Order: sequence, then C-alpha cells, then structure tokens
Amino acid sequence: MVDRLVVIGGDAAGMTAASTARRGRDDLEIVALERGTRTSYAACGIPYLVAGLIDEVDDLVARTPQEFRDRQRIDVRTRHEVIGIDTAEGKVEVRDLARARDFSLGYDELVIATGARPIRPDLPGIDLPFVHGVQTLDDAEHLLAIAEEIDAEKVVVVGGGYIGLEMAEAFVRWGADVTIVDAGSQVMRTLDPDMADLVEQALDRFEVEVRTGVDVHGFEPGFVLTSDGPLPAELVILGIGVTPNAELAAEAGIALGPRGAIAVDRRQRASAAHVWAAGDCATTFHLVRQEPVHIALGTVANKTGRVAGTNVAGGYATFPGVVGTAITRICTTEVARTGVSEAEADAAGLAYVVGRIETTTTAGYFPGAQPMVVKLLAEVGTGRLLGGQIVGGSGSAKRIDIVATAITAGMTIAEVIDLDLAYAPPFSSVWDPVAVAARAAARAL
Amino acid sequence: MVDRLVVIGGDAAGMTAASTARRGRDDLEIVALERGTRTSYAACGIPYLVAGLIDEVDDLVARTPQEFRDRQRIDVRTRHEVIGIDTAEGKVEVRDLARARDFSLGYDELVIATGARPIRPDLPGIDLPFVHGVQTLDDAEHLLAIAEEIDAEKVVVVGGGYIGLEMAEAFVRWGADVTIVDAGSQVMRTLDPDMADLVEQALDRFEVEVRTGVDVHGFEPGFVLTSDGPLPAELVILGIGVTPNAELAAEAGIALGPRGAIAVDRRQRASAAHVWAAGDCATTFHLVRQEPVHIALGTVANKTGRVAGTNVAGGYATFPGVVGTAITRICTTEVARTGVSEAEADAAGLAYVVGRIETTTTAGYFPGAQPMVVKLLAEVGTGRLLGGQIVGGSGSAKRIDIVATAITAGMTIAEVIDLDLAYAPPFSSVWDPVAVAARAAARAL
Repeated sequence: MVDRLVVIGGDAAGMTAASTARRGRDDLEIVALERGTRTSYAACGIPYLVAGLIDEVDDLVARTPQEFRDRQRIDVRTRHEVIGIDTAEGKVEVRDLARARDFSLGYDELVIATGARPIRPDLPGIDLPFVHGVQTLDDAEHLLAIAEEIDAEKVVVVGGGYIGLEMAEAFVRWGADVTIVDAGSQVMRTLDPDMADLVEQALDRFEVEVRTGVDVHGFEPGFVLTSDGPLPAELVILGIGVTPNAELAAEAGIALGPRGAIAVDRRQRASAAHVWAAGDCATTFHLVRQEPVHIALGTVANKTGRVAGTNVAGGYATFPGVVGTAITRICTTEVARTGVSEAEADAAGLAYVVGRIETTTTAGYFPGAQPMVVKLLAEVGTGRLLGGQIVGGSGSAKRIDIVATAITAGMTIAEVIDLDLAYAPPFSSVWDPVAVAARAAARAL
Repeated sequence: MVDRLVVIGGDAAGMTAASTARRGRDDLEIVALERGTRTSYAACGIPYLVAGLIDEVDDLVARTPQEFRDRQRIDVRTRHEVIGIDTAEGKVEVRDLARARDFSLGYDELVIATGARPIRPDLPGIDLPFVHGVQTLDDAEHLLAIAEEIDAEKVVVVGGGYIGLEMAEAFVRWGADVTIVDAGSQVMRTLDPDMADLVEQALDRFEVEVRTGVDVHGFEPGFVLTSDGPLPAELVILGIGVTPNAELAAEAGIALGPRGAIAVDRRQRASAAHVWAAGDCATTFHLVRQEPVHIALGTVANKTGRVAGTNVAGGYATFPGVVGTAITRICTTEVARTGVSEAEADAAGLAYVVGRIETTTTAGYFPGAQPMVVKLLAEVGTGRLLGGQIVGGSGSAKRIDIVATAITAGMTIAEVIDLDLAYAPPFSSVWDPVAVAARAAARAL
C-alpha cells in the first residue's frame, strides 16, 4: 500500500510542497484540497490586475489543477474545504462544496498550507458588501467586477501597509479618487518614520490622500465612519494586515506561535506527528530578531513549501529563516527594507547607530538620475549590520538585496564598505550608495 | 616643520588619497601633481559624453583644482608632470609643462596614483592621428572635436572589452557606422562564451558589426589593415585594455607585480619606505583567485585611494581586495560579472559546476518583462559560490551585487538558495533569479 500525502491549500506553499514531494517520491499518492477554484497563483499580482497592468485573472495562475494532475500526478480537488483534522487517527474531514457532501480522507503525511486572510476588525458595518478584503484571485475577480459595475469613483483603503498602498495605487490607475486611512502616525510601519515620510510624499505626488492618526469606527453604506468624520466611499479595501488561517490546526490541538500562526521547526514540522505546515499559515524564524515571527510573503511560502515537500518525501531540508526583506513600488517610487527597523531594534534591546544618505540612482551627471535615500542600522560595539531601508526612483529598491545578503552573512559595516559592488554610470555612483551609507554608519560608530 | 605629502596624479585615487589624508591630519602639507588640466573626474562617463547623453566635458569633473585648494588646502598643480622619483632622498623631479621648467620637490610621504593608459600595440601606423586611445577627459575632448570636425561616418573599435563596447555604443548613438574588431573568439573575454554570445546578439540588434577572430596588422590613413582585409575607418578607437603607468615607479626601483602594476600590500604600501600606490597603477588582491591582479576600475581607485590616504595620515586601513565585479550596459542590454569565469576557474585549478537559467527581469506576467540569463559557478565538494554572470534587460545587471556579496562572505550555493531576497512583481519572479540559478547549480552538484 502506498503512502498518501494530503495537502490542505492549493496555493504557493501547498502546491510547492506537493510538487517537491512528487520529485522526491515517485510512489507517493498526493491529494491537494483547495477551497477555492484555482491553484498556484500569484496573489502578489492582484494590485496590478486591478490597475489594469495585467489583462486577465488567469495570467496570474502559474499552474492549473489539470496541469498538476497531468504533469505530476497530483490529485488536486478544488472547491474542497477541509473542516477538521484528526491527528490521532491521521485523517481530515473534507467538505466537497460543489456536491455539498462531507467525507473523511486518511493521510500518512499532512501538509497544512491554508494561508492567511485579511484582518476584518469587529466594527459596525464590517460585513457590508462594499467592504472588501483581497487575498485570493476569486476575491480579486469579484472586486474588479463590482468596481466596474458601479464605476467606482471614491475608494477608501483602510490601512497603509504594503497591500493597502499597492491597492491604493491600483485604484488610482484604475481611475478612482483614493484615500488611505491609517490609525498609526505613518504609513508602512515596518519603515522608520523618516523613510515612511518619503513614501507619503510619493503618494501625495500621485494624488492619493493619506490620513494618518485616524481611527475607523465603522461603515455605513457609502461612508467610512472615522475619528475625522464620515468619508464617502463606494468601495472600501481592507489593508490592515492578514491573520493566519490556523483555526483548523488549533482545533486539532496543534501548537500555535506568534500572531496565532502554526508553530513549526526548521524542517516545517508542526507539533503533531506527520503534520507539517508552510506558507502564510505558519511561523518562520527571524534571523536578526532571533525569534519566531509571522511573515506572510510569497517568497517565504514558496521556500517553506519546498522544505516541507522535501522532508515529507523522506529527504532532509531546513529553512534557516528570514531577515525581514520586503519591497514594493508606489507609483514611480520604490521602497524596500530588510533586517530590523529602529523600532524593532529598540524592542529587541539592540543598541545601534544609523547611517543615512541622500544620493541618486545613477551617477549624478547621468541623464535620468533620480533621488534615492539609503539608511543602514549597525550594532554599537560589534559594528554588525542590523537593517536597511531604501526609498527612491527606478533602480533603488532591489539594492536592498545587498543588505539582506550582508545581514545573513553576519557582515560588519566595515565589511560592507569594502564590498566589490558593481559600478558603471548608468547604474550607480562610483561609491555604491549602500557602501556610502555604511561609511556614514561607520562614522557614527 | 610640517610633513609634506606629495601625490602624483590628480584623478580618483590620488585626490581621494589627498582628501582622506587631509581629514586625517589637518597639519599636513599636501601637494598634488597632475600632468593634465583636470582633477577628480569620472573617466567612466566618457562614452556617455561621446554618445551625447552628457552635455559638457566638465559635467564629469567631480571637483576642480580650485575647489581642492579652497576647501581642503590641497595644493593642486595641474600641467605638472613628475619625471623622476628618488626614494633614497625622498624627492620627486617635476616638470612644469606650462612654464617648461623642472624642479625638485621633497616628500615625507608619497602616493603614486598615476593611473593607466590604453594599450597601443606596436603596429605599423599606430601613431597615425586617426588612432585614438581614450583615457582622460583631455583625450575625450580631443576625440569629440575631431569626430565633429570630420563628421565621422565609419568608426572601427579595436578590442571588444568593456571600454571598446561602450565606445562602440557611443559612436552608434553619435551617428556613425561602427565595427568592432577583436582577435579573440568572442567579445568580453571576462565572460564565458555562452554569455558573451548574448552580448554579441545585443550588438547585432543595435547594428554594431562585430568581427571576432580578426587580427589587426596595422593602420593606413582611412583604413585598418586586418587579417580580413582593409576596413574603412575615419576614426579608430583602441579598446584592447590598459597598461599601468608604472614606469616612473619601476625606474625608481619600486617593485612591480602582475601586468607591470606597482606591487602593494593591503595598506597600499609600495616596496619603498614612505611610498604608497593606489588606483589603476597598482595591483590589488583577488579574493577568489587568491592572488594579486591588475584591475583598472574607478571603484577600486576610490577605495584604495581612501586606504592610502588614511594610512598616510597615520591612521590604519586595509583594502581586502576585489572579487572581480564589473558591469556595463550595451544599448538596452545589461551585462555583469563577478568572481571567476569558467576559464579563470580552470586556470586556478578550481573544479566547478554551472547553474544557468533563462528567466525574466520581472514576474513573467508583468508588463515589460524582459529576458535575463543568470549563470553561477559553484565549487565541487564545498558548494562554495565562485562566480556569476548576468546578461539581460533593464534591471538585470545590478543583481550581480547579490553574488559579489555572497562570494565575499564565502557563502555556499545552499546558503544562496535560502537568501531572503526582495520580491514584488515589478522587480522579480517570486523565486529570485539568483536563487533559481543557485538551485540549478545545487542540482548539478
């Protein structure tokens, strides 16, 4: 009798785990259960779909259920929702949504990849139909259809994080007036205030209205009720973060970690035998903060799915963790961060100095040079690089990878100064901006 | 009596050394002797000046002699050529070119930063006025004036290295028909043949004619004489590399290293007491090849100038070396390399595997995604990353910094796969291309 792997969730983490397990073990029976209608899609592309930069919802689908069946013998069942996990018996309770019937399915190995969902705060009117969270392609398709049907002119985005800002930009490109409301004192609270301020300036140039320090009290048809008074809105987008879909696991007695995500070890093992978790529903380890965290990102989902799939198939793989890298583009302004921010360093009890420089994306004399600000944090005493943030024009943000790589390697600021980074006038100034920021940090040390 | 620092050469390395020494020692007398008329200029910008992307020669001057005098009390003397060094007596013989008189100048510390010059092979007709090397702004100014005067339509570039290719592009933009002649089997011999082939395709799309495997036998007015027969040329640009200006040092008994560059230690000390060297005239250390090399690049010039200046002023600084990073843009195709190529690995006796992938510059579904090829070399056994090459569309080349940083940190391919590199659809596919190439190399291991 062959072993059966059951995967709950058919997006990045789940289908990567399934595919990797197939490569590792040809004999395995693999069943993937997906509540929605699509598999393996690029949810990160949704804002660009709404913006009209991408034509079709299905352009974001990397691989269809049929392709998984045909190419990898993975039995993908869409519109199948898992409603219970029995770790003692090794089985899951499944609801076939199309046929409205339930059945049990035994597993030898179980990968939980149920993802995350937008946080819906318990506010009056939160369930009104004009209030949208956007997580799946099905959500996106629904939202676009409504926006077009009502020809939305006023959109309010609640929350100024990455998704909120990307959706704000999307609706500006789509043709609406957009207001972002955030309860905090700045947008993008994973950035330091001085860097977030640059992002707010960019939003202003793009005619997105930003209202920080404003609480949302509830929703009424046509309005968002706020501490600033009612704001007209034909559509509301929730961008206040996501929460892991870990209730199923919790009900099964599987241990949770930070923010209610499924606690896993470096091999993506959950607390129950033969149960693994990967992607947005699981914790991951922060290499600078040296603690488990919940970070819902496609990169992590793919990587942890691969690790889970390797281990499920009897191989050996570990995921060392993340350094907190994130990147986005707001209109023409690029934004990136990695490691710890000032607030995170404070919270972790890390003493640091800051190197912050204002420069240009190419040699200053080169046509098209645009402003760019690079900020680095280094630990007092050791000189160890702790974090970095970049905001600037085209060609700015991917430079954060230098910082992420150097942090992962445990480099000091002095070592960063000496890095042999690429220079030619169309790409950089002769002293690479990251090295110049490192010099500024070195002087502060 | 104050100490006197004499600097020979007023470009990047020399003036960085002078400026750094001034910051380190306020009391130092600093004299910088420059044979030409300008200081501290961006020679790397010359092709863009010829192309018309930059308006004025002086846009490339970072700081004028007068600014050095006014702001840093550095006694810059242009049109002053050093014609002899006496290390026993601690003095240099100087020719004041404007006044046609010679004089001696004593030094307590001497920084040699005489740069490099284009190689002029000893061929019949090499001294004809239509054969140009381009190294200084004065050269560039002269070349542009001639090109405009004769309204050059046919330009032949001898040598398909970085400078040759950049000058070829420049003259296409300027409006000429350009042919590149290279004796080797490919352009850009610091790239592997498969990657150089992509560059040749880009040149072809830009209507630059590339003739490889063609020897130049000499020059006659209006023609380059080659093994392929005579090629019509109103202007010839020499792009077959540079040779260090180290004759002065050699005549003074100072030891030379590879390719006749001035041998220096990690503090930029030359073999004679109180003599330092930095920039294109000196050797540097290659961290992967683990041997001294001669690499003439603005980045190295600035960094080694800073190290020399710090040490001259009584501080302590070392330059660890380079990993061989280089980058350029040929038309719209970006090209970068770092570490060792296949040929360099072979020469160093390193056994390696290759991971090579073809991907796109952004998420594949994102508008404007362009092809990109990433190639990594990893050592057999250890899995250590040895080198990388990237050729592709906009946003490709600066990714080489990830590879350069990882090589410097001594990372393995497995560690590169796990790097927390930045992802969003406008910037990358969800698995970063560098990580995907690392996965390909891991499979090959």
